[in-house]
Amino acid sequence: MNLPKSFLFASIAARIKSEDKKRLDMGLVYCPDKALVSGVFTQNRIKAAPVLIGMDIAEKGYVHAILANSGNANACTGDQGRKDAMELMNSVADELGIDPLTVIPLSTGVIGEPLPVERMLSQVHDLSKNLGPDPDGFARAIMTTDTCPKVVSKNAGRATFLGIAKGSGMVSPDMATTLGIVLTDAIIDKKEMDRILTGSVETTFNAISIDGDTSTNDTLLLVSSCKVEADPKSIEHTVQQVIKDLALMVVGDGEGATKLIHITVTGCRDKKDAKTIAMNVANSALVKTAFFGEDPNWGRIIAAIGYSGVDIDPMLVGIRIAGTDIVCNGIVCPDYNEDHVHDKIKAREIALEISVGQGPGGFEAWTTDLSYEYVRINAEYRS
Amino acid sequence: MNLPKSFLFASIAARIKSEDKKRLDMGLVYCPDKALVSGVFTQNRIKAAPVLIGMDIAEKGYVHAILANSGNANACTGDQGRKDAMELMNSVADELGIDPLTVIPLSTGVIGEPLPVERMLSQVHDLSKNLGPDPDGFARAIMTTDTCPKVVSKNAGRATFLGIAKGSGMVSPDMATTLGIVLTDAIIDKKEMDRILTGSVETTFNAISIDGDTSTNDTLLLVSSCKVEADPKSIEHTVQQVIKDLALMVVGDGEGATKLIHITVTGCRDKKDAKTIAMNVANSALVKTAFFGEDPNWGRIIAAIGYSGVDIDPMLVGIRIAGTDIVCNGIVCPDYNEDHVHDKIKAREIALEISVGQGPGGFEAWTTDLSYEYVRINAEYRS
Repeated sequence: MNLPKSFLFASIAARIKSEDKKRLDMGLVYCPDKALVSGVFTQNRIKAAPVLIGMDIAEKGYVHAILANSGNANACTGDQGRKDAMELMNSVADELGIDPLTVIPLSTGVIGEPLPVERMLSQVHDLSKNLGPDPDGFARAIMTTDTCPKVVSKNAGRATFLGIAKGSGMVSPDMATTLGIVLTDAIIDKKEMDRILTGSVETTFNAISIDGDTSTNDTLLLVSSCKVEADPKSIEHTVQQVIKDLALMVVGDGEGATKLIHITVTGCRDKKDAKTIAMNVANSALVKTAFFGEDPNWGRIIAAIGYSGVDIDPMLVGIRIAGTDIVCNGIVCPDYNEDHVHDKIKAREIALEISVGQGPGGFEAWTTDLSYEYVRINAEYRS
Repeated sequence: MNLPKSFLFASIAARIKSEDKKRLDMGLVYCPDKALVSGVFTQNRIKAAPVLIGMDIAEKGYVHAILANSGNANACTGDQGRKDAMELMNSVADELGIDPLTVIPLSTGVIGEPLPVERMLSQVHDLSKNLGPDPDGFARAIMTTDTCPKVVSKNAGRATFLGIAKGSGMVSPDMATTLGIVLTDAIIDKKEMDRILTGSVETTFNAISIDGDTSTNDTLLLVSSCKVEADPKSIEHTVQQVIKDLALMVVGDGEGATKLIHITVTGCRDKKDAKTIAMNVANSALVKTAFFGEDPNWGRIIAAIGYSGVDIDPMLVGIRIAGTDIVCNGIVCPDYNEDHVHDKIKAREIALEISVGQGPGGFEAWTTDLSYEYVRINAEYRS
């Protein structure tokens, strides 16, 4: 895997996530040269302490380190939560000889419990001594119910882009309900970074849904060590690709998911309407359970299109599942044979195409099915 | 059970819902004297044929009969769906010697399949001959995944109000995802009926959620034979009570539900904000699975409050579950002992109280938990 220049990684098991002394749950990224940073953060009104701190730092624009933990979101923890995060930032800054306000904290996990800050502080020294070139431990240290680490690397000319994310549940994007970072060595200015990051989120992290819940801790950072010249267009394109790949990895690892459903909506008045329809279908419990049951139950899909609130003409609706036309002009297609779809819907990845007219607006979204396993994971998580 | 004067009921098994010849799936209500009618109907843009017809008749205001079926929603069936419904209305009108445009059709069940109209027509004669005073068969004939019929009777002075509803899944109200009728003999005028019905829905059927999906067939009718004098205030109050009881019966019979959660939101700027918060919590898959797991996971509740989009101050949020204060001023209460709630949350009915400040706006809503059984029912339904 290609890695961007000037980034080091470390991870350690601090027993935040479980008593298992091998389960990594603290991670550190270090850029010895001051790096540029942009961020997008949860639109949830309830923002975790590390989100509030990260927003300030991303606005200033410079970062040396990212200190992440899983198992505890440090959300709804009030003043103490902020103090705990600052104490950890100070500790990392001391170890690395940097300004504490260039350390971005990221937390994910249970909401409302105080951070086990003493135990975490006791690990910071060892964590800093572990720094090395391999990002795998860091990617594992931010996992919660994820079944696998999510890492992607791409090049734009000689510049390299490394994406790392976590996310598996509480995934409904606004921005996305995940932690994610994209590290690069491409030379770029802060304004351009902000523009690219914001622009990329709408059609990637904000186009996936696992359960319709938006977390208090969403953070996606773009960090550049600015070492390698690269074509600006190529930078933008590559960042978008990395973020899209991460978003697809997150939804593909959705809690209990047995299916990845790729929803394409076309023919709307504008993109906003298309997105509204796509996300209503993506979030419908009835559509999701039907896919789990491998039942091409288009009635539930058309009902979700109808209750999205978008002003559509029912007589223009078309639905295609796994390449088979099912609904034409609002009713079942004359030559539709359900048997053809029954086999195709057994695949893990399924295309669901919705058209609602002749308008120019379209949107792509991704969702999962809703399985027994989703219920099990979330009825048991935390206890 | 008290019954309103001048209504007769019938039911029959027409093998629409299943091949079981004993499973009732067609029902008829007949008022020999022309009755007044008001209706509220689904806000889904995709409206079933019987909804479109019922809306016209309710606007004109007079009805002699209600012909209902379960097993097939006659939705997304285009012109044929409308013709099928009209043919059935004509057949009932012939049997009873009434105007076909005083027969309201109600359908519920699978979307998108043509009504088995020949089989249904062949039953209309026998159905009409079955008419009698007992509403129980009618209440059973409109059931889909309901586990029990939903009937309630109340009096306002000498006038009687009989409510009958179905609903168990695809329940997210706007208006409500159900069929419901309230029959009365109270003397009332059409304008007053419209006002009372519309006013009652907002805090009853529109305040329940099972799965966040709104159907194509929602219909709630208020029908009066106008035989008995009653106090207008008492009429309004009783209609509200009957509709509220029906709504609670529907959510209490939610697909796979093991819990009924009564959500109260207070302290908002206005009622609309309070409803937005209540319904976001009511629809959260993570809140619902936590209740199924009997886990007082307030972090998921506060996350849902935060992503509702209502402009709240996180530092003013309070959460109480089953009478125990858990969150005060946005963080966990100092003397909170989770063990106290763990026992109380094992009950079937649980109170969830949310306060977000000092404003005058409040709202009550009801939801269910999300269980393995919900997934099973909906992964298997239709196949």
